[in-house]
Amino acid sequence: MERHRLAAGIDIGGTKIAIGLVDRQGTIQDQVTFSTESRNGIPDACQRISKALTILIKNAGLQQSDLLGIGIGCPGPMNRETGEILNPHTLPGWETLSLTKGLCNATGLPIALENDADAALLGECFVGAGNGAAHVVMLTFGTGVGGAALSAGQILRGVNDEHPEIGLIPVLPSEATDYSGVPGSLESIASGSAIGNAGKKYGFKNSPAVFEAAAQGDAQAIAIIDRARTGITLACLSLAHTLCPERILLGGGLMDDHFDRFAPAIEMALSKATLLPPNKISVAKAMLGNLAGIVGAASLIFSHPAPLNSAR
Amino acid sequence: MERHRLAAGIDIGGTKIAIGLVDRQGTIQDQVTFSTESRNGIPDACQRISKALTILIKNAGLQQSDLLGIGIGCPGPMNRETGEILNPHTLPGWETLSLTKGLCNATGLPIALENDADAALLGECFVGAGNGAAHVVMLTFGTGVGGAALSAGQILRGVNDEHPEIGLIPVLPSEATDYSGVPGSLESIASGSAIGNAGKKYGFKNSPAVFEAAAQGDAQAIAIIDRARTGITLACLSLAHTLCPERILLGGGLMDDHFDRFAPAIEMALSKATLLPPNKISVAKAMLGNLAGIVGAASLIFSHPAPLNSAR
Repeated sequence: MERHRLAAGIDIGGTKIAIGLVDRQGTIQDQVTFSTESRNGIPDACQRISKALTILIKNAGLQQSDLLGIGIGCPGPMNRETGEILNPHTLPGWETLSLTKGLCNATGLPIALENDADAALLGECFVGAGNGAAHVVMLTFGTGVGGAALSAGQILRGVNDEHPEIGLIPVLPSEATDYSGVPGSLESIASGSAIGNAGKKYGFKNSPAVFEAAAQGDAQAIAIIDRARTGITLACLSLAHTLCPERILLGGGLMDDHFDRFAPAIEMALSKATLLPPNKISVAKAMLGNLAGIVGAASLIFSHPAPLNSAR
Repeated sequence: MERHRLAAGIDIGGTKIAIGLVDRQGTIQDQVTFSTESRNGIPDACQRISKALTILIKNAGLQQSDLLGIGIGCPGPMNRETGEILNPHTLPGWETLSLTKGLCNATGLPIALENDADAALLGECFVGAGNGAAHVVMLTFGTGVGGAALSAGQILRGVNDEHPEIGLIPVLPSEATDYSGVPGSLESIASGSAIGNAGKKYGFKNSPAVFEAAAQGDAQAIAIIDRARTGITLACLSLAHTLCPERILLGGGLMDDHFDRFAPAIEMALSKATLLPPNKISVAKAMLGNLAGIVGAASLIFSHPAPLNSAR
């Protein structure tokens, strides 16, 4: 009888790397977080990941043979085939070597690599708010607005395996464009930093202050939140007509705290859209928070159709 | 050696049915068009289709055994498995029986069924402006705005096999909503009827009159076209960030005549969008016009992965 086996899920960000040991039920048995320090290069990161993993395994009373493999969620752009990470802004110093090869050499384990937003979506679909659905859109509202989609059970990808940037679809008219070059993008209206910046004009310190003032009836703060809600609602209408998902997940810190301020307006708008499948699209709050990336990365190993090539 | 073989492509609309004999190069050898008269029911339509097909085959000096099968593009919603067409507005009288079973019984040939917008996209991808691309979005501007998308070589479908209505994504603010329930949808701003209706306020008879006046410098007409162009550009930015296609195809009567009035603004906006894959998304004019449906329907037969079950 096969032993109960685990996968390691790694969620890599520009600042921190989080590693968890995840079982087939999607439960994180143990986890550890340390700084990324990408400028020290891929070999250094792989050594530190390998070391952290060894300690995690030992502390759990396990052996390396209990690990099926390592799944990684990482900011893109990336080449999932070669394992190269091509994001000098978020992960400077990682552009020249393969992360998956480096980690495979350091650990001897099979490695799977995925865009971080896609990994988080896979986590929610594995054991969170997307569970059981094959057509899912997830929007994550933090400093920016990230997004990912599952279509017919597969991660939606574009030309050249690109991760689509759903958080940047235009939703409201704007003369100004930001770094993305998209006028009136969802992110420019409804991200935490967009709400915070809009609030600064009226003396609010940041986006939590805007939400707090809105809750106390401040008209300016309410107008800022209303505009964000309109933008999010239009984005959901756009994504619903483009992808026809059965579920739209809203996550990130902003939704963790304020989901109920946004969901009813979105549900109302979707219910009025006559050419969407009737009563088929639900709006749900993401459940796993910032653990979605670890769980989703590990799920890459559990769900992989064929044995992963550890010599890739 | 296998004989040179053909497929029949059928493009069904609310008013007319067009049938063509299509070869493996995507060339229509011969075609015929007759009225749909859906109120007479499925068996009547199948009899007339079968009869028309027999004449087409005979006129081409062929035998029925030269036909590999029959592909159909038809307005949805539909159940592609059972062959039922569930659109009482466009095809009243067809709701209770299976079109594919009826046609299979009438002809003895394998039948494949597809949404008409998806069939037109498949036609363009077979031998038209989408040829060679695996990630394609097509928008068709006629009375309304239709759309379809290919993602990783597969037709993009939503929950319950639904065809997404890409032409209805919201693009500009509007207090009013039309039948679709979507405020400021692409269709409500950039369809032929939307441009025509906007023009009527200024005394223009229809959308061609608006384009003609705009070409002669009429400020009101130019403003209407500019608004349509802004809407189309925002829709393309939205679809580009959601689906990351390598090609966006613009078709329909409006684009047949005025593609060059719209494409440069779209290309400019896409080139400024910094998070899209650089220089990867092109904007192209659909090539096959209203023959795309016939060719795409026939391509269902040529491209089908397994022998079609003629007893479906």
